[in-house]
Amino acid sequence: MDVRDLPTPLLAVDAAALEHNVLTMATLRPGRSLRPHVKAFKSTELARYVETTGGHHSFCAATLRELEGLSAAGIGDDLLLANETLDAARLARLVSSSDALITVAVDSPETVRAASDAGASVLIDVDVGLPRCGCPPGSAGKLADLARSLGTEVRGVMGYEGHVVGRADRATRSEGVERSMELLRAAHADVGGDVVSAGGTGTFDLHDWASEVQAGSYLLMDTHYAALGLPFRLALEVEATVISSSDDRGWAVLDAGLKSFGMDHGDPSVPGWQVFFCSDEHTTLVPADGGPALPRVGDRVRMQPAHVDPTVAYHEQIVVVDGDDIVETWPVDLRNW
Amino acid sequence: MDVRDLPTPLLAVDAAALEHNVLTMATLRPGRSLRPHVKAFKSTELARYVETTGGHHSFCAATLRELEGLSAAGIGDDLLLANETLDAARLARLVSSSDALITVAVDSPETVRAASDAGASVLIDVDVGLPRCGCPPGSAGKLADLARSLGTEVRGVMGYEGHVVGRADRATRSEGVERSMELLRAAHADVGGDVVSAGGTGTFDLHDWASEVQAGSYLLMDTHYAALGLPFRLALEVEATVISSSDDRGWAVLDAGLKSFGMDHGDPSVPGWQVFFCSDEHTTLVPADGGPALPRVGDRVRMQPAHVDPTVAYHEQIVVVDGDDIVETWPVDLRNW
Repeated sequence: MDVRDLPTPLLAVDAAALEHNVLTMATLRPGRSLRPHVKAFKSTELARYVETTGGHHSFCAATLRELEGLSAAGIGDDLLLANETLDAARLARLVSSSDALITVAVDSPETVRAASDAGASVLIDVDVGLPRCGCPPGSAGKLADLARSLGTEVRGVMGYEGHVVGRADRATRSEGVERSMELLRAAHADVGGDVVSAGGTGTFDLHDWASEVQAGSYLLMDTHYAALGLPFRLALEVEATVISSSDDRGWAVLDAGLKSFGMDHGDPSVPGWQVFFCSDEHTTLVPADGGPALPRVGDRVRMQPAHVDPTVAYHEQIVVVDGDDIVETWPVDLRNW
Repeated sequence: MDVRDLPTPLLAVDAAALEHNVLTMATLRPGRSLRPHVKAFKSTELARYVETTGGHHSFCAATLRELEGLSAAGIGDDLLLANETLDAARLARLVSSSDALITVAVDSPETVRAASDAGASVLIDVDVGLPRCGCPPGSAGKLADLARSLGTEVRGVMGYEGHVVGRADRATRSEGVERSMELLRAAHADVGGDVVSAGGTGTFDLHDWASEVQAGSYLLMDTHYAALGLPFRLALEVEATVISSSDDRGWAVLDAGLKSFGMDHGDPSVPGWQVFFCSDEHTTLVPADGGPALPRVGDRVRMQPAHVDPTVAYHEQIVVVDGDDIVETWPVDLRNW
């Protein structure tokens, strides 16, 4: 089937680029040294592809719904909620229904108690420089003690250097990882356990101490990560249709806009032309210096998102393509909460 | 049922504010002088509420899916695709299956032919200053002639002054409407027809010539529109849970982020505190000058989106609340394409 027979906008993922990304990562960080992060793509079938093609069996997620979906589909045997939750009842249902080991990040007495009530294992989430979740490194040991006193298995520590992963310069990223891992080392000394979980797509090859890296964006990529010189290809585009165009007035209008793209990293890019602005269901294109003439009404155009995660979360399916041929259609079934 | 028993993040809509907005608009622009725009809320049940409570029976939409949903639910008798489409086959299925009059905006020979092939009526979409869809005013008559030569009913013109609706100053908006309507008047003189469709929430009461105003944001509102001094109340909030907090370090973390908010108009607001930054599934809050202490782990907090349309499009349901009591739960069933 031809992708041009589907209505637009749609998420088109290049099959060869996706395979390249999976295999490249699996070579550099094989098996359990990578914990693929489902938040970037929210699709059970894409996770299954990563498990079978990449050979990774530990996964992480940002929401309970993402984990519930993986668990119900029997994907992975070691599932981590790399985030805090207070919903002990829902976590308990997941733990009791899952064949996988369920682990959850904790950074407070409240989240330790929720995990303990649910019967989940925990990683102590440590603040390594990003002002978000994570306890101060000096409090990690005390939280681990509390968890163990409640009979909860403490598997180790987690520390996400999210303030570093997107920095343009590799040396800057590397120094940032080193500083963050110093903090995580101190916490790990107090906590113990086999698991040290850290990193992201931008720092996946800068970790030599962490036992595993959490990365998801490497699979589909976006223009922001593409600027970092990583060995992954831009696999994700949004296919749109030109619904209005006028050479006289100097612009063309695509039928994909603010409801098709996460906009926090800026406008999408459209190779060959310049994005003038996006509105709810439209993007207005103007010619680029020395570029081709504007596309014509009815043409299909592929657009490159600036931020993969909140882009995918707007769509109901991922269409895997080889040129215009549809190879697979995967529901984005793990969105919402 | 209590909204605090539902998982977060969730879209909470204040029942009284919503009713106020519907009734206020219905008083100022009764019946067919308002064409409620479904793109702002993408929910069949909310459209039904607007029809029964507000007494409007003409609706417009930005996507075929939105119109298909309204039509299948029997909402409205006059449904306008206020956007261009080349998908004649899908439009034809809608026309032949619907009890409502189906009209579509056209701005090119290609879109006229698609409408004609589908058996839809048309409005000639005229560029009145926003560089997006719409033909030059001087070409409108020729497009109308083409449509009529193909046996298609031309109901009139449409011109959206989207470059004006969000301007902070009312006098500036009013002058902008006047300039845009001059252009639309010229086009209408060449096109004819009973329908002159224009406007939006920010200019709903600045039109004295258009036969109808298209507005949808007035129903739920957002912080951007709330700054314009309109007679509508902010009805929409995203309810989140505090999952991490530390008075020592000076921030608290909510479980709603980039996948819960359209970000093109900027960060959401959280009354009482200051938003430091949003990431995929988190927002980090810091204290505001003279404001209250940070919320505690487990607290529920309501957040105000900056742009309603792309915010709602991330969510699967709207929970209508009276305080913490759930009054209605309406699926956001018209998202995607």
